[in-house]
Amino acid sequence: MSETKSKGKGLNRRELLGGTAKLVTLAGVAGASGAAGLAGGAFLQPSAGLAATPNKTHVAPGELDEYYVFFSSGQTGEVRVVGCPSMRELMRIPVFNRCSATGWGLTNESRKILTENMLPETKAFLQSRGGVWLNGDLHHPHISFTDGTYDGRYLFVNDKANTRVARIRLDVMKCDKVIELPNQNTVHGLRLQKYPRTGYVFCNGEFEVPVPNDGQILDEPEKYTAIFTAIDGDTMRIAWQVRVDGNLDNVDADYQGKYCFSTCYNSEKGMTLADMSSSEQDWIVIFNLKRIEEAVAKGDFEEINGVPVIDGRKGSPYTRYVPIPNSPHGINTAPDGIHVVVNGKLSPTVTVFDVRRLDDLFDDKIEPREIVVAEPELGLGPLHTAFDGRGNAYTTLFIDSQICKWSIEKAIRAFNGENVDPIIQKLDVHYQPGHNHTSMGQTKEADGRWLLSLNKFSKDRFLNVGPLKPENDQLIDISGDEMKIVHDGPSFAEPHDAIIVHRSKVNPVSIWDRNDPMWEDARRQAEADGVDLDWGADVIRDGNKVRVYMHSVAPTFSLDKFTVKQGDEVTIYVTNMDDVEDLTHGFTLVNYGIAMEVAPQATASVTFIADRPGVHWYYCQWFCHAMHMEMRGRMLVEPRSV
Amino acid sequence: MSETKSKGKGLNRRELLGGTAKLVTLAGVAGASGAAGLAGGAFLQPSAGLAATPNKTHVAPGELDEYYVFFSSGQTGEVRVVGCPSMRELMRIPVFNRCSATGWGLTNESRKILTENMLPETKAFLQSRGGVWLNGDLHHPHISFTDGTYDGRYLFVNDKANTRVARIRLDVMKCDKVIELPNQNTVHGLRLQKYPRTGYVFCNGEFEVPVPNDGQILDEPEKYTAIFTAIDGDTMRIAWQVRVDGNLDNVDADYQGKYCFSTCYNSEKGMTLADMSSSEQDWIVIFNLKRIEEAVAKGDFEEINGVPVIDGRKGSPYTRYVPIPNSPHGINTAPDGIHVVVNGKLSPTVTVFDVRRLDDLFDDKIEPREIVVAEPELGLGPLHTAFDGRGNAYTTLFIDSQICKWSIEKAIRAFNGENVDPIIQKLDVHYQPGHNHTSMGQTKEADGRWLLSLNKFSKDRFLNVGPLKPENDQLIDISGDEMKIVHDGPSFAEPHDAIIVHRSKVNPVSIWDRNDPMWEDARRQAEADGVDLDWGADVIRDGNKVRVYMHSVAPTFSLDKFTVKQGDEVTIYVTNMDDVEDLTHGFTLVNYGIAMEVAPQATASVTFIADRPGVHWYYCQWFCHAMHMEMRGRMLVEPRSV
Repeated sequence: MSETKSKGKGLNRRELLGGTAKLVTLAGVAGASGAAGLAGGAFLQPSAGLAATPNKTHVAPGELDEYYVFFSSGQTGEVRVVGCPSMRELMRIPVFNRCSATGWGLTNESRKILTENMLPETKAFLQSRGGVWLNGDLHHPHISFTDGTYDGRYLFVNDKANTRVARIRLDVMKCDKVIELPNQNTVHGLRLQKYPRTGYVFCNGEFEVPVPNDGQILDEPEKYTAIFTAIDGDTMRIAWQVRVDGNLDNVDADYQGKYCFSTCYNSEKGMTLADMSSSEQDWIVIFNLKRIEEAVAKGDFEEINGVPVIDGRKGSPYTRYVPIPNSPHGINTAPDGIHVVVNGKLSPTVTVFDVRRLDDLFDDKIEPREIVVAEPELGLGPLHTAFDGRGNAYTTLFIDSQICKWSIEKAIRAFNGENVDPIIQKLDVHYQPGHNHTSMGQTKEADGRWLLSLNKFSKDRFLNVGPLKPENDQLIDISGDEMKIVHDGPSFAEPHDAIIVHRSKVNPVSIWDRNDPMWEDARRQAEADGVDLDWGADVIRDGNKVRVYMHSVAPTFSLDKFTVKQGDEVTIYVTNMDDVEDLTHGFTLVNYGIAMEVAPQATASVTFIADRPGVHWYYCQWFCHAMHMEMRGRMLVEPRSV
Repeated sequence: MSETKSKGKGLNRRELLGGTAKLVTLAGVAGASGAAGLAGGAFLQPSAGLAATPNKTHVAPGELDEYYVFFSSGQTGEVRVVGCPSMRELMRIPVFNRCSATGWGLTNESRKILTENMLPETKAFLQSRGGVWLNGDLHHPHISFTDGTYDGRYLFVNDKANTRVARIRLDVMKCDKVIELPNQNTVHGLRLQKYPRTGYVFCNGEFEVPVPNDGQILDEPEKYTAIFTAIDGDTMRIAWQVRVDGNLDNVDADYQGKYCFSTCYNSEKGMTLADMSSSEQDWIVIFNLKRIEEAVAKGDFEEINGVPVIDGRKGSPYTRYVPIPNSPHGINTAPDGIHVVVNGKLSPTVTVFDVRRLDDLFDDKIEPREIVVAEPELGLGPLHTAFDGRGNAYTTLFIDSQICKWSIEKAIRAFNGENVDPIIQKLDVHYQPGHNHTSMGQTKEADGRWLLSLNKFSKDRFLNVGPLKPENDQLIDISGDEMKIVHDGPSFAEPHDAIIVHRSKVNPVSIWDRNDPMWEDARRQAEADGVDLDWGADVIRDGNKVRVYMHSVAPTFSLDKFTVKQGDEVTIYVTNMDDVEDLTHGFTLVNYGIAMEVAPQATASVTFIADRPGVHWYYCQWFCHAMHMEMRGRMLVEPRSV
C-alpha cells in the first residue's frame, strides 16, 4: 500500500503522446523555507515549464491541474479531491456518509471497515439501526508525513459527529480503516506527527463528558473530562489517551517529533455559552511525546475501555498549560519549524510561540508565557493561519471577513518593543472565512503560490439556489507581493478544511491489483467454495445461504440469471475482469436497494436476505459500452409457497 | 409553491449596490426558433449587456453565471445544480440518496415524502431495512413547462434503481414528492408534457417483468410485459399506464400536447444480450394522449394495483409502432415543434420524423414509416441529439467519441434524393459521450449558445484519482459557426443527463416562509401540545414519548439541555428563527447518528429511541457565528436503572 506505483497495464493516450506530455522532474517550485526542495517525485505535466512560470489561473481543456486539494466536506461526511488551480471536483471519497453510487456502507468490504473497530456499546446501539452510522461530520484531512513533508501514503480524517477517525489509502483513494475513539464525545482537531514520520495521528476530544458516560453523572461538571488521543497511524489502534483540563479545539505538531499542542477554548469548563466564554484567557495544552511514551512504558496510566489513559491535567509532568487570549481556535506550525501561531478567535490577536523553548518549559526553567515571542493584533475573529514559506503568515479574520497577511519576523520585533507594523495587506473575502490553506503550506515545503480561503457564507456570490446556500472557497494568488482573488468556488455543506498538495506527492494506480487486501474475505470464501473468484460464474448453495459468483466483461455479467428461494441469505460477488483504465462497472439490483461500484480488476460483494419474491433485474449502472443498457440479468426469487 | 417570488426580507449586498447590479430585462437571447423570445422574466446581472455579448467562458469572482444547469447524478441519487458557463456545482439536492449533511432520509419531513407514496409491498420489504431506500439511480431531470418553455415551478426526476419518480420544488430547491411506480421494474426515460403545460410526467418502464411479479412466473418471456406510465405532475398521482411491446428506453413529447413517443431497444423481448440485439430493426412507440384519456374515461382498461392499465400493445388504437434501425436510444423533439430525432445507437443513423403526420398515422391514412422525413448516417453510436434553434442538430456519437453537427433541413433534402451532405462538423470529445444538451435547447426557446457533452469516460483528462475516475462533462461554445470545447468538467458518478436553463426562468426564495407546508405535521403537533413552534423551548412528555421543541438564534439553541429516560421515543423539533439570508443552522446529536439542516425560518424534526444512556452533546454543524463552536447543548439520557 505504501508503494504508489503506476501499473504498466493499459497505457493511456497521454502516456502514448510523449513529447510535451512526458514525465519531467519538478524543479524550482519549493519556497524559501523548503531547504531540501520537493522530494524528487516525478509528475505528469502537459507543457514543460509550467511550474516555473507565474501562477496560471486557467486550466485549459485537457491540461492537468498542478495540485491536488484534499477537502473535508464537513457534515457531508466524504472527502473531496479537487484540482488546483481549476478548483474542479475530481473525485468524492465516501468515508462517514452512505454513498448511493459506490455502495459505501452497504458492501461487505465497506461494512467490515466501518465496523471492525467499533466499540461494543456502539455495535449494540446500531444493531436495530442497520449496523453502521449513516452520517458523519468530517473536519480535518491530513496526509501522512515523512521528514516534514507529505509522503503520499495515507490521508487521515476525523468525524466529529460520531467520534471516529478514518484512514484513506492514497494509492486507490479509498478508505481502508475506521476507528471509534472511546472515552470521549466527539473528535474535533486532527493533525499528524511530521517527523520522523507519521506515526501518530493526534486527535482532540472536544466535548467534555463524564467517564464512564453511563447516565449516572449528569449535572456535576467537575466529573466531566476531556480527552486527547494519539492513534498509531500504521495500525490504526489507539496508542494512548491523555486526560486534560478544558475543551480542546484544534491541534498541531512540531517538525522535530517531540511535541504537539492543542488549543482550548473553554478553560472555564462551562456547559453553556455564557459560562464557556466568561474568562478573558484560555490556554493551549502542550503534550510531551517522550514523557508520555515513558509513562505508558512504566504503567503510569489508568486503563479505561482497553486504552491507557494518562493524567495530563494541570500540574502533570506530561503537559504544560500556556495562557492564551481568548478562546483560541486554530493552531498552525510554520514551515520554518520554529514558530507556531495560535489564533485568538474572541481576541483580535494571534499568539506566536517558539518550539525551541519547549524543552525549558517542561524542565520548569521558564514560565509558560515565556515561550511566547509575538502577539500581534490583526483584526476581529482570527481563526486560522497559513504560511507561504517566505516568512509571511495569512490569518483568516472571521468577523472582519478578511485575510490578513503579516510578517512573522516583524511581529516578533514589535513584540520586542520595536515600532514596526507586521501587517502587510488585508484582503476582503466573501464571506466569513474559517480555515485557510497555502499550497504545501502545512509542510516544510511551503511554496507560496496559492492560498485558499474557506468562507462559511456565500450569500449573493452565486446564482440563487434557495434557502440553503453553498459555502464559498476562494482561491487567492499569493505568488506576487499582493494577494489577488482569482476564483470563487461554491461548495456543498461544508468545505471546512483542506490541504493543497503538489501532484508530485500523490501517485495513485488506475487499476486494482487482484491481490489487494480490500476483498480478502471474498478471496478466502471463494477458495473455500472451490470457485475461481476472477472468472466466477457459479452459484453455491450452503443451507439457506447462497453465494453467487460472477464477473463482468463489458457489456456482460457472467451470469445472465440465477435463482434463489425467498428467505435465503444471498451474497453476490462481482469481479470486474476488464483490465482497462476507467472501465468501472456497477451492480444494481432493482427494487432491492442494492448498488455497488466495481472498478477495473476489483471485487465487490454484498449480502442480503432475498425476502421479496419475483423476477428482479440487476444491471450495470456505470456506463461502460455501447451495449451498456443491455448489460443486465435476472435474479429469480422463488416464493416460499412454491 | 408555483409563485416563485423573492421575499423582501434581508436585502443582500448585490441588491443594495444598485447600478450595474440592477434588475435588467432580458433581451436578445432567444434563438431564431423561439418566436416569442424568452418570457418576460427579470434577472440579476452583474454587468449590463452580458447577454448580448459573444459567449464569455470565464466567470470572474463575484460574477453570476447566466444559466442554471440541472444535472442528474446517476447512481449518486441526487440532483446537482451547476452554474454555466463556469460549471461550478452550486448546490446538491438530495433525492434518492441518504444525505449526511441535510438529514435527508432521516428527518421526519423527508421520511414522510419518501414513504407516503410507497407501495405497501415495498413498505413491508423496507421495514427491517430502516424504512427508506438508501440508494437511487437518478437519470433524467426536467423542468415543468408552460406553453413550450420552462415555467420554473418544478423539476421532475426518475430513479431507475428503485422505480420511483420525484418532484423538486424550485422555489426552495427541495424535493417535495416521491412516488413509486407499480407494475413495472425500473423507470428509465422521463420527459414532460410541454403544451399547454405540465401536466403529464411521462415515464418509461424499461425492464419487462411478469405482472403480477410474485415469483410464480420465471422463464416464460411471453408473460413478461413493459409498462409506460403517465403521472399527473400537479398531484403526483399516476394518471394511467399503458402496456406496450418491447423494452422502452427514452421518451419525449411534442409541442402540441397531443403525442409522446418512446424508443424501444429490445423489440425482440430478449432476456440476454444476444437475444436483445438480434434484429436489425426495433421501433418507437407513439402514444395518442387524447385516445388514452378517452379510454380511461370510458373504462377500457384493466385496473392493476389501483392503476388503470391500458392495453397499448401492437394493434391497439392507442399506440403506433414505427420501425427504426437499430436499438434506438435517445429521442429528442426539435425546438421547431415539428421534427423529432430518434438516435440509432447500433445503427449509424438517426431517424427524423414529422409530428404533423401523426394524426394521419393514427387514422391509418399512412404507413408507420411514412412519418419519417430523414435518416442521415452520422457515425458510430448515435445516442442523443440537441438543437440550437437555428436549424442545426448536435448528435453524440458514443463509439466515435464525437459530436456531429448537422442540418435538419439538409438531411430532409438528402432523404428526398438531393445530393447534399447534412453533416457540418464533427468534434472530438473526451471520451464516449452519452447525453448532450444545448442552452434552453429542450424548449421552444433554444438559444444556440452552449452545448454540454456528458462523456462517460475521462481517462487521462484529469489528475489521477485512482481506479475510479470521474466522468467528463465538456462545455462547448456553439454560438459561432464552429463548435469549440472551452471546459472539461469532471463529475462524480455519474452526470448522465442535464438541462441548461436560463437564469431568468428560475427564481428561488432565500428564506423559508414560516407557513410552508413542508413542516405541516410539526405545526399541527405543536398546536396540539400548546407550544409556539416558532419560539419553542419546551419539553412535552406524553407517556414514553417526549417532544422537545427548540429554536435557534445564532449562536444558541433555546434549550442548552434536556433530560429523557432510556427507551423514550424522542422527537426533536428545531426551528431556525434567524431571518438572515444564508444563515443556516444544523442540529447534530453526537454518537446518535442524527444530523439535520435547518435553513433560515425553517423547522426540521427527527424522531428516535433514546436507548443509549449518558450525556450526549448536540451541536450546530453549519458554521453560523464567531461563537459557533459554543453553540451546543446536552441531552441527558437517564439509564433505566435510575
